Amino acid sequence: VLAFVLERGGAPKLVERPEPPPRRGWTRVRVRFAGICSTDLELARGYMDFEGVLGHEFVGEALDGPLAGRRVVAEINFGCGRCERCLRGLARHCPDRRVLGILGADGALAEFVAVPDGNLHAVPDAVDDRTAVFTEPVAAACEILEQSAARGLEGPALVLGDGKLGPLVAQVLAGEGLEVHLHGRHLDRLAWIEERGVRRIESVPARRYPTVVDATGSRSGLQAALAAVVPRGTVVLKTTVADRYELNLAPVVVDEITIVGSRCGPFAPALERLADGRVRVDPLVDGCYPLEEAERAFEAARRPGTRKILVAVS
Amino acid sequence: VLAFVLERGGAPKLVERPEPPPRRGWTRVRVRFAGICSTDLELARGYMDFEGVLGHEFVGEALDGPLAGRRVVAEINFGCGRCERCLRGLARHCPDRRVLGILGADGALAEFVAVPDGNLHAVPDAVDDRTAVFTEPVAAACEILEQSAARGLEGPALVLGDGKLGPLVAQVLAGEGLEVHLHGRHLDRLAWIEERGVRRIESVPARRYPTVVDATGSRSGLQAALAAVVPRGTVVLKTTVADRYELNLAPVVVDEITIVGSRCGPFAPALERLADGRVRVDPLVDGCYPLEEAERAFEAARRPGTRKILVAVS
Repeated sequence: VLAFVLERGGAPKLVERPEPPPRRGWTRVRVRFAGICSTDLELARGYMDFEGVLGHEFVGEALDGPLAGRRVVAEINFGCGRCERCLRGLARHCPDRRVLGILGADGALAEFVAVPDGNLHAVPDAVDDRTAVFTEPVAAACEILEQSAARGLEGPALVLGDGKLGPLVAQVLAGEGLEVHLHGRHLDRLAWIEERGVRRIESVPARRYPTVVDATGSRSGLQAALAAVVPRGTVVLKTTVADRYELNLAPVVVDEITIVGSRCGPFAPALERLADGRVRVDPLVDGCYPLEEAERAFEAARRPGTRKILVAVS
Repeated sequence: VLAFVLERGGAPKLVERPEPPPRRGWTRVRVRFAGICSTDLELARGYMDFEGVLGHEFVGEALDGPLAGRRVVAEINFGCGRCERCLRGLARHCPDRRVLGILGADGALAEFVAVPDGNLHAVPDAVDDRTAVFTEPVAAACEILEQSAARGLEGPALVLGDGKLGPLVAQVLAGEGLEVHLHGRHLDRLAWIEERGVRRIESVPARRYPTVVDATGSRSGLQAALAAVVPRGTVVLKTTVADRYELNLAPVVVDEITIVGSRCGPFAPALERLADGRVRVDPLVDGCYPLEEAERAFEAARRPGTRKILVAVS
């Protein structure tokens, strides 16, 4: 089985590996497409000391298990299933979790991937393969809705970052009826997003937005979000910066701002939004490479301004 | 009128100033006691470029206005009264606000202070003068309850910092029936707080508390709070660090932590808690100086480990 594998201290490379054996409670999936996300690029640089097959965004065909024969996508956090968090439905915060292609579990940049049955979701017919690859990042965008369920989100909302995640977040929020503004460096490529109810803005007014999402992936994102939010407003932090960096958090206290860290989300609402067209993803694909050219795919994904790069596996 | 005044670039000093003139809608108050807080020490070092009479924690006697003859305390934010935030009862976030002894308004380290009528609260008889001086910081502690009203606070709660604000926050939270742990450097002086339902702890377990309050006033406070909070938990940030400093916020995203900045709060619930004894403050007083010795009072307040220093004015 061909797989794109990272070994500690090295660069990821294609290797032949044995097929994953059948395992009770786990489904083997023949991968059709996988997507490359910024986390993959970080992992390839040594983040989290991950070793194994990379890739956590994918769609494929279940070869066995309860969904055998169906097209499937998979939630990426494998919880222990027994702890208090798993029992509350928060496997993504299980202290003993493994994470597909990120932490202790081989990922989807391979011909086959093995996933716990309970993590799988059948893909509706209305969602084609290239769209289904986006289920994981759209779920990450939907997480913002889940986290704010108790108090609701107030608009207008500003999304900072128009790379991979920002346009998904903007569409998910606009789909809830919020007025949404999107700011980034390549807005000219996003004319289509206006039809989804998202307004592109060239400059960001100060202290204006009750809700601001930092999806820049950059160190300057949080500080820019803090400048744009109104006093008592909410900043949703999607950007992970792996190490220490300088910040001035005085405005957080003085203006009583709430910062909500936000990571992985639920797949069901993501698939709904991809199926009914509330979230459109095809214009975000900047290239597609066969698995045999995974190294080239990573090179392309690394180029500044590149959005989603897909890998066609089978 | 004797007043303790800060001029730009200098150290604060005692000067004779004219009595504040009567002004429609404002009450003149003869100050009895004022308290020194960490913000005063920062202002004296140049923070916010404040010029004028220092001091924002006080109790006194109203000389005119609707509460003439009564003992009073005063909310410190003077809003414009017309903007959307003022009309929502959030004068403390009015963009044009003045703040008593902090921003554009003379403070209470003087024989007389002038305050808008609407900011005054009569002090219940059950609250003596030295206790009433604590209304402002107890209100800042109560602000945590107001900000979490929508989603509620989950216990056990950890309060980091046992200086001036921490023991007040701990008592306010314990008064709501939460299990509260308090951590700091001088816990031996706080034996009495156990009677208020607050447990003192010598070492902080990692990832344990659904709610953590950083009341350390130090740069290391937020990082310590992030280490102590459970995934999906809430960190309330009371510490203001005036400039940029290094932080690692990756755990905020990975563990989906919410950081809530928290500043000034409502006076009514603070006075209630001081009147019915839910919050005890007298053991936090480390000294009391006459106004004529205000400079010595500031020196004492600056000594590491010193908690509340009072100034007896009249």
